[in-house]
Amino acid sequence: MDTYISNISYATGEQREIVSLSGNGVDERTIAMFSKFGLKYYREFNGSIYDLAVKAAEQTLKEHHNQIEEMIFTTGSFHTQPEPYNRISNIRELNTVINKLGIAAYPYGIFLSDCANVISAIHIGKSLLSENPDKDILIVSSDVTGKTESRIVPPGSSIKSDGAGSCIISGKPNGASFMILAVKQYHNSRMLNNSGFANYSIELMKSMDFIKDEFFNEGCDNYKLVLVNNYSTGFARSLAKQIDIPIEIVYTEQIAGYAHCFASDIFINLSKLIADGGISDGDNILAIASGPSSISGISLKYVNK
Amino acid sequence: MDTYISNISYATGEQREIVSLSGNGVDERTIAMFSKFGLKYYREFNGSIYDLAVKAAEQTLKEHHNQIEEMIFTTGSFHTQPEPYNRISNIRELNTVINKLGIAAYPYGIFLSDCANVISAIHIGKSLLSENPDKDILIVSSDVTGKTESRIVPPGSSIKSDGAGSCIISGKPNGASFMILAVKQYHNSRMLNNSGFANYSIELMKSMDFIKDEFFNEGCDNYKLVLVNNYSTGFARSLAKQIDIPIEIVYTEQIAGYAHCFASDIFINLSKLIADGGISDGDNILAIASGPSSISGISLKYVNK
Repeated sequence: MDTYISNISYATGEQREIVSLSGNGVDERTIAMFSKFGLKYYREFNGSIYDLAVKAAEQTLKEHHNQIEEMIFTTGSFHTQPEPYNRISNIRELNTVINKLGIAAYPYGIFLSDCANVISAIHIGKSLLSENPDKDILIVSSDVTGKTESRIVPPGSSIKSDGAGSCIISGKPNGASFMILAVKQYHNSRMLNNSGFANYSIELMKSMDFIKDEFFNEGCDNYKLVLVNNYSTGFARSLAKQIDIPIEIVYTEQIAGYAHCFASDIFINLSKLIADGGISDGDNILAIASGPSSISGISLKYVNK
Repeated sequence: MDTYISNISYATGEQREIVSLSGNGVDERTIAMFSKFGLKYYREFNGSIYDLAVKAAEQTLKEHHNQIEEMIFTTGSFHTQPEPYNRISNIRELNTVINKLGIAAYPYGIFLSDCANVISAIHIGKSLLSENPDKDILIVSSDVTGKTESRIVPPGSSIKSDGAGSCIISGKPNGASFMILAVKQYHNSRMLNNSGFANYSIELMKSMDFIKDEFFNEGCDNYKLVLVNNYSTGFARSLAKQIDIPIEIVYTEQIAGYAHCFASDIFINLSKLIADGGISDGDNILAIASGPSSISGISLKYVNK
C-alpha cells in the first residue's frame, strides 16, 4: 500500500545568535568554528518538550479532520524527571498534550535513535498502517536541551536547538504531501560504548557507505534534493563527499537560522521546502538523519495536485 | 500473515519479603493490605535496567540462531540520567547490551504505556514483520525502581518489583510458542492529568468495558486462562467481576512470589505457564496489561508440537 506524510509543521524556541553562547558553557573557538561552518542562530525554549509538542501539533491538526487513532511521540530529552522520581510523569504530561489537541489516540513513545527518531517513528507508523490503512496517525517529535546539558552536539558536530515537529501519516495524501518510497535504517553498536565514541570516524564512514549502497546505487539523478540534519555546512560537505554526490543537491538553507533541532530537523526542512516552493509535484527527495550510533534514510516523492 | 512469539524468558532482582519494606517508605497498614491481597515477595535489583535486560535476553537468544534484525526495547524507568544530563546515555547503555548479546540489530525504544509496554512492543513488532516476514525481532522489557522512587504502584495498586523479560517475535514458531490472534489497545487521556488520577474508578471501568467488548463478546469459553499484571489477587478478583468472567480462569499463581515487575509480568507469567505445563498445544489465552491511563489485551494460541 502507498503511505503518505502530510500536514507537516514545526515549532521552535526563540531565535538567538550562537555568539550569545560564548562564555555560557561554549568557548569562543568552538563558536568561531561553527560560524565558519554556516551556523548563525539557534533556538531556545523555556518550557517542556510537551509544551513545544502542542505548538507544532496544533498546526498539523488545524486543517485535518480525520480520526487520529494513534499518536507516535518521539524524544531524546529525559532530563526533566522530578525528584523523587515519578514514573507516571511522562504519560501524565502527554495526556495533557492529547487533551489540549482534542484527540483520542493511543500513544506510542519512541526513543533511542535521537536525531533520527522521526525516521523510526515514520517507519513504525508506516508498519502500523499496513494493519489498517484507513486510520490516520499523528507523529510528533519534541526536544528541549536540559538546563544542565551542554548545547554542543556530541561528539562536537553542532549546536542544539529546541524544536518540535509533526505530521500525519496515512494511506492518503492531503494537500502538500510526500509519498514514502523507502525507509532504510542502519545501526552500529560499536560506534558508541561506555568509553564514549569509539573509532568514530571509521564507523561513521560505514554509515555513509550504507546510505550510498541503499539509495545511490544508480547515482544521484533520482533525487532533486538531499535533506540532512541541520548540523553545519561542514557536515553537509563531508557527507556529500563521502556518499559521492554534488554538494549543490544537499539542502543546507536552514542551517544558519535554526542549527540542530534534534529529530525535528526533517520536519523543519520539509516544511520550509514546501513553503518556499522549492519542490514540484513528482520530485523525489531523500532525507537522511543520523543518531549517535545510527543512520536512517527515507526517500519521498512530493505529491501536490 | 501469522506471527509468533517464542523463546520467552525473564530475569528479576533478588526475592525479598514485602514485610521488609515496613518503615522503609511503606507503612504497615499498606503492607497488611497487600498481604491480604496475595502479595508475599517482591524483587530488588541493584544494577541498571540494561544489566537486567542482558540477563533476560541472553536466555532468549541461547537457543536461537536466526538473524535478529531489529530489537524493541521497552522501559518506563528514566530515573538514572546522570547529572549533567548526557543525552547519549540511553543508547550508549543499550549498545553495551547489544554488544554483550552479540547481535547486530536496529534498536527501537518504546515507552509511555508503562506496564503495558510489552503489548505496545509486540504490536509494533507484529507490524514491522508485515514488511518482511523473514526477519526475527528481539523484544526486551526492563524496569528497575529508582532509589528515590516509591515501591508503591500509583495509585496504590501493588508493590513494584525489578524485572526484565524477553522474547523473539517472528513469522515462525520455535519450540514452545504463541501465535498472536489479536492485539487491542485502549487509551484514556482523561484518566490521568496534571492534578493526578482523575475519576480513576469510573475511567478504569471504561477500560474494563473495552476488554469485555473486544475479547469477551461471546463469553469466556474461548480462553483457557486470562493473564493479568501481577498487582494483587484483589485486583484480579475485581477485574474478573468487571469483565464478567470466573476468577478461576484468571492466572494469579505468580502474584505471591513476584509482585508487579512492570511490563515484564506477561513474560514471567507466560514463561511459568510453559515451564509448569499449565497449557497444552492449541489452548487460547488472553493476556491483559494496564498502564496508568491505558489497557491492552493480546490473545494468543499456544503452539508446541
